[in-house]
Amino acid sequence: MPIAKDVKLGSDVKIFHPDLVNLYGCTVGDETRIGTFVEIQVGAMIGARCKISSHTFICEGVTIDDEVFVGHGVMFTNDKYPKATTAEGRPQGASDWTLQRTYVGKGASIGSNATILCGVTVGAGAAIGAGAVVSRDVPPGATVVGVPARPLSFVEDRRVSGAVPSNIG
Amino acid sequence: MPIAKDVKLGSDVKIFHPDLVNLYGCTVGDETRIGTFVEIQVGAMIGARCKISSHTFICEGVTIDDEVFVGHGVMFTNDKYPKATTAEGRPQGASDWTLQRTYVGKGASIGSNATILCGVTVGAGAAIGAGAVVSRDVPPGATVVGVPARPLSFVEDRRVSGAVPSNIG
Amino acid sequence: MPIAKDVKLGSDVKIFHPDLVNLYGCTVGDETRIGTFVEIQVGAMIGARCKISSHTFICEGVTIDDEVFVGHGVMFTNDKYPKATTAEGRPQGASDWTLQRTYVGKGASIGSNATILCGVTVGAGAAIGAGAVVSRDVPPGATVVGVPARPLSFVEDRRVSGAVPSNIG
Repeated sequence: MPIAKDVKLGSDVKIFHPDLVNLYGCTVGDETRIGTFVEIQVGAMIGARCKISSHTFICEGVTIDDEVFVGHGVMFTNDKYPKATTAEGRPQGASDWTLQRTYVGKGASIGSNATILCGVTVGAGAAIGAGAVVSRDVPPGATVVGVPARPLSFVEDRRVSGAVPSNIG
Repeated sequence: MPIAKDVKLGSDVKIFHPDLVNLYGCTVGDETRIGTFVEIQVGAMIGARCKISSHTFICEGVTIDDEVFVGHGVMFTNDKYPKATTAEGRPQGASDWTLQRTYVGKGASIGSNATILCGVTVGAGAAIGAGAVVSRDVPPGATVVGVPARPLSFVEDRRVSGAVPSNIG
Repeated sequence: MPIAKDVKLGSDVKIFHPDLVNLYGCTVGDETRIGTFVEIQVGAMIGARCKISSHTFICEGVTIDDEVFVGHGVMFTNDKYPKATTAEGRPQGASDWTLQRTYVGKGASIGSNATILCGVTVGAGAAIGAGAVVSRDVPPGATVVGVPARPLSFVEDRRVSGAVPSNIG
């Protein structure tokens, strides 16, 4: 049963297959739904009435406000320069790297297979396109798409060239 | 055992680790092979002699014809504007969003980590590059790569700049 | 217990949830750490003191040297033109496709959700940005980002346009 005892679950949290998730040391708010093959690490905070879809990874240092949609296969990060070992070749321990925090505002939606680089803030109500790589802050209410993710209005100006998606999925 | 009783499996379907997949309400054709950490939702239709690779998510509204290769970590989508809640802040229910259907034609190949936006048709025999984000229809037999995915012949014209992949993986 | 008997594990290998990985026929070096929902196929070679993060797929034909960081949701590939079936419509067998080998050098770091096309060499100490699609060799010590992945120094020249990430995650 890979939901550790130290997970704080609100009321009416739905975890569809408790044996096929890996939750430890995290906090999940009321009525949030969590799909299959999801990992949520120690210290991550998930708000109320969120939907966390299958195959998604939410790491230490990530705070997700209420009513956020996180698609399938979304990967958060928390280390700007990840390494397996120290310069001396020892496996890295907790004191060998710097945690970068990420915040996702209320009511935001993150499309499937998106990657969220660490240290960014996704504003309330923002929409991240499927497959996007978010490398800087996203303003509240904005829609961003692509690699790296850019505002859709800017991207739409280039749509005549066929270079941009017609929806965000 | 997360293969629900309401899954319709053809003959000689191979599921390598039945305890490490999540299949419910879907239909899978004869001789299709399904990898580990795969989720296939209610109403999804998979043809015969397909290969569905590990870490892939196939949602409601997706129909995959016979002899299709789906790589590892491929994410399909079915909601153009996904949200966790209604405008009033209730968790979304079945009547609160619009299903968009996706069709993948016979003999197509979808590269690993590709994202398929909803509402598209991937033509028979088409090839989707690894890591591509497919946001519009792909003609039969075409090869598309990139974010958003574009035909390889168009992309190849720009290859001199070093801007495009030299294979599709 | 989906760690097959034919897996060769070095000393002090840490597998956090042995029931939620799929390892078979592979070799893993001393002190390497392996996350949840990871699949490592027959013939893959992982060095010592590596970190293989959750949701990652490492296929046959991949050799990873010592002290390599592999992020979450990273997908390796080994077939340039993957198909589900032969031209005659039979499910492909072992003799119906050509394995392409991939090598990752000592101390490299691969960001989350990256896709590594087959046949490439990632040099020692190189860094692959999160969400990148690596389609050609990466020189030792280089940092590459984007789809397709390009050296960061080249990309930085274009940063004034807002077109590129400001970190590699």
